[in-house]
Amino acid sequence: MNNEIYSLLEGVRDGKVSVDEAMLSLKNKPFEDLGFANVDLHRRVRQGASEVIYGAGKTPEQIIAIAKTLVDNGQKTVLITRMDAEKAAAVGAAVELKYYDQARIGIVGEIPAPDGLGKVVVATGGTSDIPVAEEAALTAEVLGSEVVRLYDVGVAGLHRLLSHMDELMEAKVVIAIAGMEGALASVVGGLVDCPVIAVPTSVGYGAAFEGMSALLSMLNSCASGVSVVNIDNGFGAGYLASMINHITKAN
Amino acid sequence: MNNEIYSLLEGVRDGKVSVDEAMLSLKNKPFEDLGFANVDLHRRVRQGASEVIYGAGKTPEQIIAIAKTLVDNGQKTVLITRMDAEKAAAVGAAVELKYYDQARIGIVGEIPAPDGLGKVVVATGGTSDIPVAEEAALTAEVLGSEVVRLYDVGVAGLHRLLSHMDELMEAKVVIAIAGMEGALASVVGGLVDCPVIAVPTSVGYGAAFEGMSALLSMLNSCASGVSVVNIDNGFGAGYLASMINHITKAN
Amino acid sequence: MNNEIYSLLEGVRDGKVSVDEAMLSLKNKPFEDLGFANVDLHRRVRQGASEVIYGAGKTPEQIIAIAKTLVDNGQKTVLITRMDAEKAAAVGAAVELKYYDQARIGIVGEIPAPDGLGKVVVATGGTSDIPVAEEAALTAEVLGSEVVRLYDVGVAGLHRLLSHMDELMEAKVVIAIAGMEGALASVVGGLVDCPVIAVPTSVGYGAAFEGMSALLSMLNSCASGVSVVNIDNGFGAGYLASMINHITKAN
Amino acid sequence: MNNEIYSLLEGVRDGKVSVDEAMLSLKNKPFEDLGFANVDLHRRVRQGASEVIYGAGKTPEQIIAIAKTLVDNGQKTVLITRMDAEKAAAVGAAVELKYYDQARIGIVGEIPAPDGLGKVVVATGGTSDIPVAEEAALTAEVLGSEVVRLYDVGVAGLHRLLSHMDELMEAKVVIAIAGMEGALASVVGGLVDCPVIAVPTSVGYGAAFEGMSALLSMLNSCASGVSVVNIDNGFGAGYLASMINHITKAN
Amino acid sequence: MNNEIYSLLEGVRDGKVSVDEAMLSLKNKPFEDLGFANVDLHRRVRQGASEVIYGAGKTPEQIIAIAKTLVDNGQKTVLITRMDAEKAAAVGAAVELKYYDQARIGIVGEIPAPDGLGKVVVATGGTSDIPVAEEAALTAEVLGSEVVRLYDVGVAGLHRLLSHMDELMEAKVVIAIAGMEGALASVVGGLVDCPVIAVPTSVGYGAAFEGMSALLSMLNSCASGVSVVNIDNGFGAGYLASMINHITKAN
Amino acid sequence: MNNEIYSLLEGVRDGKVSVDEAMLSLKNKPFEDLGFANVDLHRRVRQGASEVIYGAGKTPEQIIAIAKTLVDNGQKTVLITRMDAEKAAAVGAAVELKYYDQARIGIVGEIPAPDGLGKVVVATGGTSDIPVAEEAALTAEVLGSEVVRLYDVGVAGLHRLLSHMDELMEAKVVIAIAGMEGALASVVGGLVDCPVIAVPTSVGYGAAFEGMSALLSMLNSCASGVSVVNIDNGFGAGYLASMINHITKAN
Amino acid sequence: MNNEIYSLLEGVRDGKVSVDEAMLSLKNKPFEDLGFANVDLHRRVRQGASEVIYGAGKTPEQIIAIAKTLVDNGQKTVLITRMDAEKAAAVGAAVELKYYDQARIGIVGEIPAPDGLGKVVVATGGTSDIPVAEEAALTAEVLGSEVVRLYDVGVAGLHRLLSHMDELMEAKVVIAIAGMEGALASVVGGLVDCPVIAVPTSVGYGAAFEGMSALLSMLNSCASGVSVVNIDNGFGAGYLASMINHITKAN
Amino acid sequence: MNNEIYSLLEGVRDGKVSVDEAMLSLKNKPFEDLGFANVDLHRRVRQGASEVIYGAGKTPEQIIAIAKTLVDNGQKTVLITRMDAEKAAAVGAAVELKYYDQARIGIVGEIPAPDGLGKVVVATGGTSDIPVAEEAALTAEVLGSEVVRLYDVGVAGLHRLLSHMDELMEAKVVIAIAGMEGALASVVGGLVDCPVIAVPTSVGYGAAFEGMSALLSMLNSCASGVSVVNIDNGFGAGYLASMINHITKAN
Repeated sequence: MNNEIYSLLEGVRDGKVSVDEAMLSLKNKPFEDLGFANVDLHRRVRQGASEVIYGAGKTPEQIIAIAKTLVDNGQKTVLITRMDAEKAAAVGAAVELKYYDQARIGIVGEIPAPDGLGKVVVATGGTSDIPVAEEAALTAEVLGSEVVRLYDVGVAGLHRLLSHMDELMEAKVVIAIAGMEGALASVVGGLVDCPVIAVPTSVGYGAAFEGMSALLSMLNSCASGVSVVNIDNGFGAGYLASMINHITKAN
Repeated sequence: MNNEIYSLLEGVRDGKVSVDEAMLSLKNKPFEDLGFANVDLHRRVRQGASEVIYGAGKTPEQIIAIAKTLVDNGQKTVLITRMDAEKAAAVGAAVELKYYDQARIGIVGEIPAPDGLGKVVVATGGTSDIPVAEEAALTAEVLGSEVVRLYDVGVAGLHRLLSHMDELMEAKVVIAIAGMEGALASVVGGLVDCPVIAVPTSVGYGAAFEGMSALLSMLNSCASGVSVVNIDNGFGAGYLASMINHITKAN
Repeated sequence: MNNEIYSLLEGVRDGKVSVDEAMLSLKNKPFEDLGFANVDLHRRVRQGASEVIYGAGKTPEQIIAIAKTLVDNGQKTVLITRMDAEKAAAVGAAVELKYYDQARIGIVGEIPAPDGLGKVVVATGGTSDIPVAEEAALTAEVLGSEVVRLYDVGVAGLHRLLSHMDELMEAKVVIAIAGMEGALASVVGGLVDCPVIAVPTSVGYGAAFEGMSALLSMLNSCASGVSVVNIDNGFGAGYLASMINHITKAN
Repeated sequence: MNNEIYSLLEGVRDGKVSVDEAMLSLKNKPFEDLGFANVDLHRRVRQGASEVIYGAGKTPEQIIAIAKTLVDNGQKTVLITRMDAEKAAAVGAAVELKYYDQARIGIVGEIPAPDGLGKVVVATGGTSDIPVAEEAALTAEVLGSEVVRLYDVGVAGLHRLLSHMDELMEAKVVIAIAGMEGALASVVGGLVDCPVIAVPTSVGYGAAFEGMSALLSMLNSCASGVSVVNIDNGFGAGYLASMINHITKAN
Repeated sequence: MNNEIYSLLEGVRDGKVSVDEAMLSLKNKPFEDLGFANVDLHRRVRQGASEVIYGAGKTPEQIIAIAKTLVDNGQKTVLITRMDAEKAAAVGAAVELKYYDQARIGIVGEIPAPDGLGKVVVATGGTSDIPVAEEAALTAEVLGSEVVRLYDVGVAGLHRLLSHMDELMEAKVVIAIAGMEGALASVVGGLVDCPVIAVPTSVGYGAAFEGMSALLSMLNSCASGVSVVNIDNGFGAGYLASMINHITKAN
Repeated sequence: MNNEIYSLLEGVRDGKVSVDEAMLSLKNKPFEDLGFANVDLHRRVRQGASEVIYGAGKTPEQIIAIAKTLVDNGQKTVLITRMDAEKAAAVGAAVELKYYDQARIGIVGEIPAPDGLGKVVVATGGTSDIPVAEEAALTAEVLGSEVVRLYDVGVAGLHRLLSHMDELMEAKVVIAIAGMEGALASVVGGLVDCPVIAVPTSVGYGAAFEGMSALLSMLNSCASGVSVVNIDNGFGAGYLASMINHITKAN
Repeated sequence: MNNEIYSLLEGVRDGKVSVDEAMLSLKNKPFEDLGFANVDLHRRVRQGASEVIYGAGKTPEQIIAIAKTLVDNGQKTVLITRMDAEKAAAVGAAVELKYYDQARIGIVGEIPAPDGLGKVVVATGGTSDIPVAEEAALTAEVLGSEVVRLYDVGVAGLHRLLSHMDELMEAKVVIAIAGMEGALASVVGGLVDCPVIAVPTSVGYGAAFEGMSALLSMLNSCASGVSVVNIDNGFGAGYLASMINHITKAN
Repeated sequence: MNNEIYSLLEGVRDGKVSVDEAMLSLKNKPFEDLGFANVDLHRRVRQGASEVIYGAGKTPEQIIAIAKTLVDNGQKTVLITRMDAEKAAAVGAAVELKYYDQARIGIVGEIPAPDGLGKVVVATGGTSDIPVAEEAALTAEVLGSEVVRLYDVGVAGLHRLLSHMDELMEAKVVIAIAGMEGALASVVGGLVDCPVIAVPTSVGYGAAFEGMSALLSMLNSCASGVSVVNIDNGFGAGYLASMINHITKAN
């Protein structure tokens, strides 16, 4: 539509279109394609570097097509999330791809050198939370953040967490990932002075109710500075963490 | 019914009742009044010392009547739970009563000297959990347990809890009481080697859902040795803690 | 405990305590009082400027005492949240207090000049969400953030929101507050490139289920960069927003 | 029963049955077989044109039998919903059938020329909602409505929706289909002046709770003119939309 | 903003603003004030006749001010919903108002003569549903629909409903309002050939769960042509019913 | 309508109305007022003896009017349920009324002599369940059943229940009423050979969730012959029990 | 234990055991093996005729063993519920078995001639409810009840139900089985004067929530005489219906 | 870290490290590896005897590695929980393992001779609860408790439970395991004087809601001394039971 608007403005300049006609035209379609292209839900990644494809509902062919288009348009790194191993194999046959099967993530191109304000710590309560954690960590890395991984530091063995006070203390953002009782977010939130993004996971059984228990627990955290994303949403946490890690005065 | 059975047996002995008749009679009413008297829901308190009245659904007159009966029958201490201040005033006019308004508990007679195996620690996440904690603590005391109170030691300020490691380490039972995210139970369960009784409270707002969040959190505790009672059920926790604290080989 | 450890170490140095004894002693109480004092749940506010008192479960006397202590210790601004008008009147009689009744917030001292990276936008879906919004806005202001208020810009009248694109576009953080269907967070999240903190409110009736509908809606936001705090938790959102707004490279 | 009543009335006319006897007889069975035949749950489609078979619980044989009966009775178009590909293959071997596998719909005969008041717009939040949307769209088309499809116009990228203002503005009914946060219904409801039928879908994960989040969101829409059907109920929405699209003064 | 765009276009025409500058300016604020004013949430009522004020969250003063503005601008009828008797008295002292206390509705000006396609039937399961029904009925009347009220025709006494077949059969839209098991919507939906708007009410106790039972029941209606609005949302149903009742070919 | 049908039939008999005309007329309104008058939801009580008024949503004037009508029409006993003491006083001033305040029931006329097959046992888990139990018991008595009350026989003190085996064994129907864990229904269902009607009550706190816990428990009873009514629905249970207690071969 | 008690009583009679000793012995084990043997959960079927085996958790070998024991002990009919086709094949190889695959029921021996008070009507809302209905019907038949099946008479096509008024009116008990909105129970309950046993089914999708919608609907039925069993519990309904159908004065 | 602390202390003793340096060092990492090693979530088992591996999220290789390490370090018994048969076969090929397939438990080494205070009774409501029960029983046995199994003693056949009064009465702890209505915990809690650990199971269907019904039932138990663990959490119950069974005065 930019072209349309541009032509319209040229018409006004050249006297071919009256101001009133242009006015009417602009009022009637003020929203059409404002020029910030939109390939995907996971879209608005930092300029010129990385782009994200949500792989879950797409065929390998669709993923390949989008990835190629992005690369052809100068994208240096393409992150593909929620892509299972089978799909990754098909995509990898057509595009050079590095696949991380725990995270179910594929990356085309290089993970860029970190350029954020500091480090993002990704901490998990248990080992079963690691797939979600890796989705968060790789997302943050692709978006330019240095990531420190602290896995299996759940609160039932507090010394495991406390032995990493140094890493926690120097984080710009902490992503706290836990299922079951989800207490990690509160404990971390009470220890650090930076934003904590809590990710409930569907790990657990019985009254864990597919992540509901951890979700409610995290929403009720009595520690300040804690906010919550959807159950198992590692991508969302990694994206937000990196966004915070790149905030600048200038914006 | 004991008398009835006794008479029946005498009849058999004396040949007045045939074995078959006695057999039939016993089969038809084997359960009637087996002789262990039952005053109340909160009933089976340790022998000869304390008895409990659940005050919530009773009139002051009913409470007075039961309390007097118990005292007349040699009960040294009577614990009255869930009794509001107004009701307590009415009861106190008729029976000598010590009233604890935070705990909504009244006690007739003396709190006995502790005779348990060790100490019961009652810990709360916040100050708003104290009424439930006091119900638990006074119940355990009335039943003969020494109680150590650790209030406002929630996990969002971990050092508050950790500064009481000595008390926690020497507990026979810990009662962990918390609302909101209820993480206290897991953290305490990870620190101590004794049974932890978790009490979710209805403290909190929004997604705390009247204690549901803390309840689910505690049920999903990844620490071993933790079990859970009903929301706000301080009495139940104090009762169970003291029961565990009095376990003996002989039983 | 620092003194204790110090003495212990002196004892080791002076040969009065053996290494083994010291070892044992350190293992038994490694956590006692690590030296970072803790007045309140809402505590860890930026150095030397503002401190927060959670007023909900406290008596006026308690609030006055804490506030005076803080002021005596050089605190320039004290924020008191969740304090109703009656309590505020009692507190105001003892301490010079500015009370904001919509937000149920009292402030002792001056709101500091903003010193953050940029502006925090507080947007609400409707007018009924304003009390939560004011809690968020005043919290952020007390913590040193400049706040732009965009109230009643719900998505059912999209032009209301879209007419404020300038303010949204230059925000460092947006707090999106809405009850009922809670769609504001997603729409704002799709428009801006900064973190969006979503606050579901208990506004609505019927199937709003006291904020549950808005909460679920916000957690499922398909826009990136959105995270969620507890229902009606304006303080938490304001606190986190200001924390993000003050992130620096040095930290 | 019509025959019975007729005979009864003849009996009265002919004096063979007294008025009292007839009265009694009528009172005892007033409801028997009123004569409007009923083939199926999805039944009451506009006269002489289309009929619907709900395929989910039926065997291919049952579907074939019903379809043949309908066609033999002059039905020009038969719509078969919720029929998977395998079943469709079996049915297609016996009846000439056009199968739409995304919508899981089979159509016997031709889709009629549209004869409604105007157009029905079917809009979806994402691409994963398309199967439900196609069920809605094809249903409306079979029932004589012209359908405009606007897919993947979710609110997280508002310009996608706004670029279709023209289509939205000239709709007689809009069907807004979305999973996750379900905000599409509210935003569309705020833009258009016609009835909006909201269809929550089970698309999403975690706190989407199989469509619950979108359902609650849509029920709480603050836009007027929005009503909701069951989760994933594309047929219901298409049916209702076409019903509204064919309302006439005469009725 | 229209003026701003107009000036910008004049600048382009006059050569004072380059096409590129105008382009940039338009891209940066494409949404500002699109010119369709918005007084209230309940706003977009048919042209020149009626306007609606949602009274719940407003003071009498606010209601009076909005009502006067509307009347001064030529509004013939103003509908005020969710206004309790006390508030109505205050408003009535300043504005001539007819108050309907069951419906909690006030009307300024006259209810217009009906100009819809036909009649809207408002049916309730019981007498306790009547307040919601009256809100729906009065809303539809104010918006120009003729309304037929069928109250207390719940399905547990089917003859009550069936005795009104005539009214049901000639309706353009039926609003079916019921609490408890909410079966009315399905039964009505099976009897009529027009759209049925189902309104669950919070009438009932126990497992009615404040309207949840009726809501789920109505969403699962196996009758076609039924859609659902929020619990107790009489206004929403009346609004939508009248909207459907005024659909025209021309639009 | 009976009169209408009668006239119609007379018309047919007299040759004034053709069979076809009559046929048409009957088909068009077959359901209008079939002559079994309907005063209330609680209506279909056994012939000639008792009638029931649901008092909850009615004014004293309405109750008086209905009661008088019933008495004037020969009703010997009128049962008024869910009527609070204040309302009862107003009704009692106009009609001779016996009021049972625990059950919130008023009875006009005499409770009839029992004429059922046998006895209905009404058992409760605790004393707090007694109001619901009395509603059930009085309902059954008014409808002609002999009732045996076994109150406070909850399963936590099994001997209390077992001491009443005789009464349980000779019951025709047992109504088992309990809150909290609702186990009474299962235990009773395992002991007796007659139908057990389970009534969950809203007695309890915390995870009792207003009767939800007892309701689920009773629905899952592993004993055969148990069915469930709504939470606190004493009337429904008493009505059904008496209905079963009056079943005859003849019907 | 009967033998033990008998011996004990003989001992008392013969003077070998003192009354006090016997008293003590009886008090200590009053419950041991009271002599009414228990083969299965579904156990207490009418004397001398039919016995039930719950097949779900059992191996074919276990089912064969129990069935043979029962037959050897004179059982004329053995009902095996919740047994899938594969298991039935294995059982059928060892025992002469008639298998009903829709109902997942196997019957050893003959279905007895009906000997109840009257007929049990089993009605379903749709065809998908038939498996549950057949479980109910066959259970009732095996237990000696004549069963009338009215399938697919859901309320969305009321005439289907009303055309069976005769069958409904002469039922002793009606079992109303429905999924989705579950309205059948209320409508039937309003039509008949006998007990209605409502069985919610898990039929439906989306907001049917696996039977929850129908369950709540049925519990809230405003018709009297309706009670509810667990979701899909056809056996329970058939058992209870037959129990009611065999009630006698003598009992 | 113990070594580090030890070295540090030696440094202080030897004058190589100043007290201030040591102080700083201790304050900065007070928590690192405090010497109580942590292999697994299920970890803190009694000294020198048994260790537990949670098998669910681990590969056979991981299990083998951990098991070998433990055995090499002198562990006499290693308990592996939640390990399916296939995994057990793989593990069993590398380590001598006794596998219990109902309990899904593998044991390396010998079950130790019981050394607790008394017996742990494990009771189940039905046979389907046995897998959970065996997990509990074997866990308790491995941890040194004598276990008495009372299976299939559900409350619908009370005599089954009551015939085991002797075993119940002499238990130190009872683990009550039940699905469906979960009433076993209350009934057992009312019979015994020792702690009862209630384990809800996911056994049941329909309104059992995967164990939710039993869970709520058990939390609401009106018997004292009952606490609850997560749904199906046999390990947790066995662990806690054995912990209670080993409580000593000395601690």
